[in-house]
Amino acid sequence: MSNPLIIETVPGTSYADITREFDAPVEALFRAHADPELFGQWIGPGEERTEITHWDFRTGGGYRFVQRDANGEYAFRGVFHTVRENQLIIQTFEYEGWPDEVSIDVIHFEALEGGRSRIADRSVFSSVEVLENMQSEGMERGMREGYDKLEKMLTGES
Amino acid sequence: MSNPLIIETVPGTSYADITREFDAPVEALFRAHADPELFGQWIGPGEERTEITHWDFRTGGGYRFVQRDANGEYAFRGVFHTVRENQLIIQTFEYEGWPDEVSIDVIHFEALEGGRSRIADRSVFSSVEVLENMQSEGMERGMREGYDKLEKMLTGES
Repeated sequence: MSNPLIIETVPGTSYADITREFDAPVEALFRAHADPELFGQWIGPGEERTEITHWDFRTGGGYRFVQRDANGEYAFRGVFHTVRENQLIIQTFEYEGWPDEVSIDVIHFEALEGGRSRIADRSVFSSVEVLENMQSEGMERGMREGYDKLEKMLTGES
Repeated sequence: MSNPLIIETVPGTSYADITREFDAPVEALFRAHADPELFGQWIGPGEERTEITHWDFRTGGGYRFVQRDANGEYAFRGVFHTVRENQLIIQTFEYEGWPDEVSIDVIHFEALEGGRSRIADRSVFSSVEVLENMQSEGMERGMREGYDKLEKMLTGES
């Protein structure tokens, strides 16, 4: 059984607190965010295929990736404000299909006992309406399915 | 008389809408944000002196600057998510004295009639408490004094 995804919001604010534990060490969890080969294997919902078109994983760097499914192509890009190994990523995020609507994620990585780990991500949107829109567009499903793939990848579960 | 600075907030949210008009064309207004020589002359409150220690003004680039006054040194840094000439800057912002507390600014530049222009900036903080803290720490004064210096610089007023 997979670890649950917890999304907490405070009505009237434009941010969400997203928490997920993993049955894997924090170093492996962080590496799956740092290495484009690994990142492309789990990010996004369902069976979408991800192509990394730009990857410069460092403070001051940036990224872009494209996902494809039966309905079309979806591109995402952002910059890395802070990268601190095994601890913290602060990055911007934009879906190019909704230009200039940019969110920022502050993603903390924590080691837990027994070789387990936790991600705690505050995802900040530019307005209450944008967060509501993201929620109705299936943000929760995309994150849950992505993290479930990530957990399988990290634990070697097939 | 200088143009007023308008800061609008909605109680309970973590963002502020900052508007300021300038008696100068939008191209000059934008250039004062793009050119580090010019930027260093107006950013920040009062008579603080600004040293630009990193400047890469483009989508995917970044910046860092240090301000000094009688009490000490204050460093700020961020990344440029989007730079669109004479129209838009989307950038992150961190005061290094408050590490990992990062805001994002979506700054629209608009041409007005009569060779005038307007900045409309949505400044998004990571929590309601952080915005309140910024307000009590004199955010409004810093912006007002900075923009007043900018207007003088653009209009050649001494």
